[in-house]
Amino acid sequence: MGSPQSPPLAHVFKGTFVHSSASAPLEILPGHLLGVDDNGTIVFVEQADQLEQLAKTWGFKTSDIRQLSKHEFFMPGLVDTHIHAPQYAFTGTRVDLPLLQWLTSYTFPTEAKYQDNGFAEEVYTRVVRRTLKNGTTTACYFATIHTDSSLLLAEITGKTTSFLPFFRFVTELLEKKYPRVQPIITPRFGPSCTEDLLNALGDLAQTHDLRVQSHISENEEEVKLVESMFPTYQNYTELYDKNKLLTSKTVMAHACYLSEEELKLFSLRGAAISHCPNSNFSLCSGVLNVRKVLEHNVKLGLGTDVAGGYSASMLDAIRKTMMASNSLQINKVNGTGITLEEAFQLATLGGSQALGLDDVIGNFEVGKEFDALLINTKASDSPFDLFSADDFEDALQKFLYLGDDRNISEVYVAGKQVVPFSSSV
Amino acid sequence: MGSPQSPPLAHVFKGTFVHSSASAPLEILPGHLLGVDDNGTIVFVEQADQLEQLAKTWGFKTSDIRQLSKHEFFMPGLVDTHIHAPQYAFTGTRVDLPLLQWLTSYTFPTEAKYQDNGFAEEVYTRVVRRTLKNGTTTACYFATIHTDSSLLLAEITGKTTSFLPFFRFVTELLEKKYPRVQPIITPRFGPSCTEDLLNALGDLAQTHDLRVQSHISENEEEVKLVESMFPTYQNYTELYDKNKLLTSKTVMAHACYLSEEELKLFSLRGAAISHCPNSNFSLCSGVLNVRKVLEHNVKLGLGTDVAGGYSASMLDAIRKTMMASNSLQINKVNGTGITLEEAFQLATLGGSQALGLDDVIGNFEVGKEFDALLINTKASDSPFDLFSADDFEDALQKFLYLGDDRNISEVYVAGKQVVPFSSSV
Ligand SMILES: [Zn+2]
Ligand SMILES: [Zn+2]
Repeated sequence: MGSPQSPPLAHVFKGTFVHSSASAPLEILPGHLLGVDDNGTIVFVEQADQLEQLAKTWGFKTSDIRQLSKHEFFMPGLVDTHIHAPQYAFTGTRVDLPLLQWLTSYTFPTEAKYQDNGFAEEVYTRVVRRTLKNGTTTACYFATIHTDSSLLLAEITGKTTSFLPFFRFVTELLEKKYPRVQPIITPRFGPSCTEDLLNALGDLAQTHDLRVQSHISENEEEVKLVESMFPTYQNYTELYDKNKLLTSKTVMAHACYLSEEELKLFSLRGAAISHCPNSNFSLCSGVLNVRKVLEHNVKLGLGTDVAGGYSASMLDAIRKTMMASNSLQINKVNGTGITLEEAFQLATLGGSQALGLDDVIGNFEVGKEFDALLINTKASDSPFDLFSADDFEDALQKFLYLGDDRNISEVYVAGKQVVPFSSSV
Repeated sequence: MGSPQSPPLAHVFKGTFVHSSASAPLEILPGHLLGVDDNGTIVFVEQADQLEQLAKTWGFKTSDIRQLSKHEFFMPGLVDTHIHAPQYAFTGTRVDLPLLQWLTSYTFPTEAKYQDNGFAEEVYTRVVRRTLKNGTTTACYFATIHTDSSLLLAEITGKTTSFLPFFRFVTELLEKKYPRVQPIITPRFGPSCTEDLLNALGDLAQTHDLRVQSHISENEEEVKLVESMFPTYQNYTELYDKNKLLTSKTVMAHACYLSEEELKLFSLRGAAISHCPNSNFSLCSGVLNVRKVLEHNVKLGLGTDVAGGYSASMLDAIRKTMMASNSLQINKVNGTGITLEEAFQLATLGGSQALGLDDVIGNFEVGKEFDALLINTKASDSPFDLFSADDFEDALQKFLYLGDDRNISEVYVAGKQVVPFSSSV
């Protein structure tokens, strides 16, 4: 911990903190003090009665403390484990076709436009602003094969924790040194690859110990296509696995139709799944059984899957996770569904685990970076009403079900306030 | 139509109008002129090249015309065919139990509080403001058995078209003469009634030709309970029908588990269904097969079912209608799902048909009242982004999937602008 020789703290907050821990999907810490040092690291989270000792250890004064109002609380920044930056241009439209037709009709023509840097800059700037404003502090992006515009995306996302895909652009990305942006190997999905390509990407991943992302078992037509294209593999998961693309640094989106056997292989390899329920509903792809995935000890985060999912907000992903789980209960597939608290956990700590960042972000543990959202449940023009009988948990639930960016009054990434925007974002 | 002797018009708008007609679920009328007279009635909807003739007939000048910007359009006010005003207090919380337990744990205790007029006034004022701000211009309310607080609700909703339930309060309601508020007979649902009560209510409905609303076949446990409580009836629908409560003035919420036979009886009686998909998902009740209901020619509208549904916004009902339909496609129950255009139709014209108000509201036909929302897809702080490539239909889809009250810049009820609020609402 600290000492009187420590540099001065960047922030000391006093109020309520809401996050997930290893033991509880949702933990409410009222009347706590949280300190953030100049590197953006959380240095203490303690009950307020520890003030005197903390002030002495960390050398701050009572007047340095920012006291939250009773309608405010901090929660961890949201982790979007799967988002297609270039598709943001048509988010909220064109979710009227199933996956394979949707790709050829809408996605490929749009993505081709990103050879135009002007277009790319407009869309990438907007998607980063929009997602930050909605509380996404970490994102795992798909981009396009255009090196220049993808480097633009790296520049724009520079302030947040981001993974960007690459084909040829990894060197350029590493040379430009955006410390919070990391490359990730990104085959689109099985049917768009040859075995040779998958193998070459797998070698690359292994040699350089790189992250991998792709799609798997999103819809039934795709699964059948993979079976017919790669008949020597037992299943879709094996296609990635035998080509060294299913590792503890892998995150695969969707996974709606994985067998028990495939889930076991995911668990064995430590590979993660990104659950994108808005997209799965919107493209009529399928419904991931989250309860079953968790029972198999597979790492799991949530994703917006913009633009297959029509919302770029991770709050929407939390709500759609509830809908997907409830639909499985209605169909008697599952006896017990996912709770709102668990959905919250998946959107924060779960996402950090899926991306292998749970030693850095995901909750308010000492030693982690302060990625956080200041929520105001009585914000001006708030989209929901509070009544005198509402207690803190009611207000929290109303925010999770009905809140939006109007309730997210400040966003912090590694201790730096990035929302409200300064002119430079 | 009009004549030079007509009173001056209240409004002449020029721009794009979006609505549903008998022949098209969504019709876009660009470059049109729409006139509203002093009674709030639409007197013309014509192409802009008819300006000269219209100006002569209706006696207005070019300077009287309000020209919409290219990012603005008018759509009909939204019709919420099923909402529980008293439950608004806990909307956005407590959707973690199935129907029957949810009623006893959360709903009954909350509704008991409405003997307190102060509490009632706070909640009723907020629910009417919140729903108006979100574009609901017509609502079919459930209230509580407390006469005084229900009369308060009548007073508060006075400006919108509303149906209010009654037990003893019909006389008071009629005496106070809120022309836009009508009484509606409201047994909660089968299991809360005796046969004698249902029969008495049916007699009342028949004698006075009154509207009726209730719930039907919301979840499986409820259906079984009705079967065991009323073994002499063939099914749930017959229970209402034989007691004269299934008429052309009836709207029944949910209907998730109706048989073909029951749907045929609905069609035969001209009774309507209110589809409340948020509630059905949230309480894990079931999924209404909208396609099948429409194929049976049963009148159908959408409802928020606050607080079983956690959102009071009819835009949410449109989106959840898509999710419900898509979930049936995923499960191969239906081959073709509901389109976004059809969901829009259900939320406007469909709702007006379900409530027997389609001669008065529901779209922009001449002779109907001007219940309308002015939508601005480039509103300041809009929750979605438009790009240069987006055409009008893209902007419309983005609004329907991602828009909120920030995009609803004005709301009109019978030609009177009620949002933004004056101090009196
Ligand atoms: Zn994707
Ligand atoms: Zn209801």
